Amino acid sequence: MLIDGLQYCNWSEKIFREWRASNITAVHVTISYHEQFRETVSNFEKWNNWFEKFPDLIMPAYYAQDVENAKTLNKTAVIFGFQNPSPIEDDIGLVEILHRLGGRFMQLSYNNQSLLATGCYEANDPGITRMGKEVIKEMNRVGMVVDMSHSSERSTFEAMEISKRPIVISHANPSFWHPAKRNKSNEILLKLSETNGFLGFSLYPHHLNNGSNCKLEDFCTMIAKTADLMGVDHIGFGSDLCQDQPDSIVEWMRVGKWTKKIDYGEGSASNPGFPEMPNWFRDNRDWHNILQGLKKIGFNDEEVKKIKGENWLNFFKKSFTPISK
Amino acid sequence: MLIDGLQYCNWSEKIFREWRASNITAVHVTISYHEQFRETVSNFEKWNNWFEKFPDLIMPAYYAQDVENAKTLNKTAVIFGFQNPSPIEDDIGLVEILHRLGGRFMQLSYNNQSLLATGCYEANDPGITRMGKEVIKEMNRVGMVVDMSHSSERSTFEAMEISKRPIVISHANPSFWHPAKRNKSNEILLKLSETNGFLGFSLYPHHLNNGSNCKLEDFCTMIAKTADLMGVDHIGFGSDLCQDQPDSIVEWMRVGKWTKKIDYGEGSASNPGFPEMPNWFRDNRDWHNILQGLKKIGFNDEEVKKIKGENWLNFFKKSFTPISK
Repeated sequence: MLIDGLQYCNWSEKIFREWRASNITAVHVTISYHEQFRETVSNFEKWNNWFEKFPDLIMPAYYAQDVENAKTLNKTAVIFGFQNPSPIEDDIGLVEILHRLGGRFMQLSYNNQSLLATGCYEANDPGITRMGKEVIKEMNRVGMVVDMSHSSERSTFEAMEISKRPIVISHANPSFWHPAKRNKSNEILLKLSETNGFLGFSLYPHHLNNGSNCKLEDFCTMIAKTADLMGVDHIGFGSDLCQDQPDSIVEWMRVGKWTKKIDYGEGSASNPGFPEMPNWFRDNRDWHNILQGLKKIGFNDEEVKKIKGENWLNFFKKSFTPISK
Repeated sequence: MLIDGLQYCNWSEKIFREWRASNITAVHVTISYHEQFRETVSNFEKWNNWFEKFPDLIMPAYYAQDVENAKTLNKTAVIFGFQNPSPIEDDIGLVEILHRLGGRFMQLSYNNQSLLATGCYEANDPGITRMGKEVIKEMNRVGMVVDMSHSSERSTFEAMEISKRPIVISHANPSFWHPAKRNKSNEILLKLSETNGFLGFSLYPHHLNNGSNCKLEDFCTMIAKTADLMGVDHIGFGSDLCQDQPDSIVEWMRVGKWTKKIDYGEGSASNPGFPEMPNWFRDNRDWHNILQGLKKIGFNDEEVKKIKGENWLNFFKKSFTPISK
């Protein structure tokens, strides 16, 4: 079972067919970046339309069981998440509403300070806010996973301490391999593993050693080293794939609605667009290359099965249901 | 199993406890009158709060099975509906979103013309609109019931013709008994029965013969005559109970946001508030009086079981699930 823990593509029938051709069983899809609640609902409407139009290719997944059903039905299960807490605005009651609509992951902050936590581009990180503590408790209750992919160090540590359920870093790599602002320290990765959390390995070139020129073997060796650090049960993929997106979208991801200037994020004025993907992972057609790379580097079949999807499925099983009384 | 097909009370722990004391298994609750989408979501949030606070008394019902579970668990199942299409605004995609949140009934119009259909207080009834036809199709698809309680004659007929699934008049009485604007002609009731639709008998005094002074025997005799007309399988209760509501609420029901004047609806300048309930049905404490009245008038046990709840349950079974491909 192949599962990708994060994509933000320019969705189309073409991509849905590539999902099927790659035999990908589930994808955590970013449904909102900086959209507020009503805009997020419009995004759910758009997906409802696709589910109605392509019932043989895709289906929504609310619980782990739906992912298993998708496997049986030869469809790709779509699991929704938010890269920013914008969809809940300043209203904690929207956590349960959005969980009911299908939201299963929410980043407590994107690159900036949010109402809940600090992003990895802020100069100062005061940690999880008062509202942040309440929202983590509510996310734990209803079964929405805390995602700290874009958050900064202290906030991430505090989130792991406050949350009663395991959290994720759905799309990032270890900074021991490539010291990008978005990659994570060994201390965070160890604590993540100790708390039964989860790391999804990113394939976004700015998170890769040597960027677009990163070698497959280098990527797979990094996975092996991370497995040594965290254990092989807490890792999987979170490709951060932005297939078929125009460069205006990477600007939207970075700038959202918070500034009238251009913010280049991980890019630069001379390199403002989407970076080119490595030639061994152009897009959803190339998952087989990575799986072969893992075998070649020495992972056995059992381990590859875990990393490619079983670990995510197990994480979904314990994470998406409400805590019952 | 006792089921009420419509209430709009000033909900409180007291009322939830009275539901339990009356052994009422399910109530169709009006969650929005004239509220738009975002306001409706806030109403769902309020109910989520009550479900969290009173888990031993109430639970949400999404499907008929939940009503049966509520019976087993000794809780009251809450089924949500809208008395106006305001919650979908001008956006057909919100039908599926609101169904996912728990909306199971929607009136195509309240007393006025809506984007979909005509209300019973309009002078002219051009019938179901272009958008109305599309929304009926979408409600049929997702499993949201068309409710024509407050709609006018032609729109109601057309809704029964256009809808591929049975519709309801959740709270009204036959006009042969009391010729109020809100009560329904024999022609409508016959067509409703022929199309496997459903009538919920109202206990709102303006819909009763002799209003607040209506006699229990008179009410029950009317039910017997309606059973003769429609058959005993298509009828139940839709009390329209507005327990513990201040008079400002009946003004809200009538005036909403559509006028800056006062509209008295079924009341009058000299009698603008909620009418007094009949002494045999003060509120949720008095269901037993009606059940006794039905037996006294000659309904057998099997028939009383149907009218008090089995008919509604059967209607829920065929109405709330999406039409599968």
